[in-house]
Amino acid sequence: MTAPPCQACNGDWPPSTHRIADCGLTIAFLHEDQYFPGWTVLVFKQHATELFHLPPDQRSRLLEEVTAMAEVLTLEYQAVKINYELLGNVLPHIHWHIIPRMADEPSRKEPVWRITHEPKHLGPAALRREVARIRTRLRSHAGGVFYCEPYKAVKKQ
Amino acid sequence: MTAPPCQACNGDWPPSTHRIADCGLTIAFLHEDQYFPGWTVLVFKQHATELFHLPPDQRSRLLEEVTAMAEVLTLEYQAVKINYELLGNVLPHIHWHIIPRMADEPSRKEPVWRITHEPKHLGPAALRREVARIRTRLRSHAGGVFYCEPYKAVKKQ
Repeated sequence: MTAPPCQACNGDWPPSTHRIADCGLTIAFLHEDQYFPGWTVLVFKQHATELFHLPPDQRSRLLEEVTAMAEVLTLEYQAVKINYELLGNVLPHIHWHIIPRMADEPSRKEPVWRITHEPKHLGPAALRREVARIRTRLRSHAGGVFYCEPYKAVKKQ
Repeated sequence: MTAPPCQACNGDWPPSTHRIADCGLTIAFLHEDQYFPGWTVLVFKQHATELFHLPPDQRSRLLEEVTAMAEVLTLEYQAVKINYELLGNVLPHIHWHIIPRMADEPSRKEPVWRITHEPKHLGPAALRREVARIRTRLRSHAGGVFYCEPYKAVKKQ
């Protein structure tokens, strides 16, 4: 039996244009819908679907990457709360949504999934600016722990 | 300036009737809406709002509790996926939603928040059965790591 191809494993998702940094066990990408500014996704480099499939030390390192990104996004976007979500309903490959929530959002108390909106896709220049903005904060905050590659609009290998 | 009272800290939420077990750093409760069977919430015993406010060792232990519960719920409910969600939009006190998702759900690919439904509140007998069911699995699976109290319909101290 052949497993179905995994879009995260074969590099079809997320788009490489949205890549922010190599965080160690994960790659950080800006989420394609930026209606919620700063929404970032940490994609696990290996294929795994559940936390309990990982060895404990890997799980801890994964959470450290999630946490560092959450703090960086809080500082950069002046978030009042971070939503941390590991779902995998559509793509069962571990990827962690890290969503900064702002004080002035009209539906601040609702999960993002309940808030009807047109997805906001950034144009190339705005996308580069947003990625660069998070990278700059990552470098200063995480002290170079994360490897922030220059922006390259190429399909990741 | 006085901080607003926290419903989780003062024991107003979740209801003590829904208490499953003391997991160490967290208390596990059956979620009040059981439209998604087995939906469990792990409530941090201390007041904290973000993962980056915790020391790393506490964060790791917290994730181990989340992970153990996720595995227990997967086994007990034959879940095909677990959704792990730490939001805090309404109640900014760390509590982790652990939601078993089943193969036969009509909207399996959607986040639970998008699925319109009438909340399913269990009656006292059904609630006791469901709590007992998870406790039994916790005891056999987690080898007594979690302290599973007998069901008591009293307000927690």
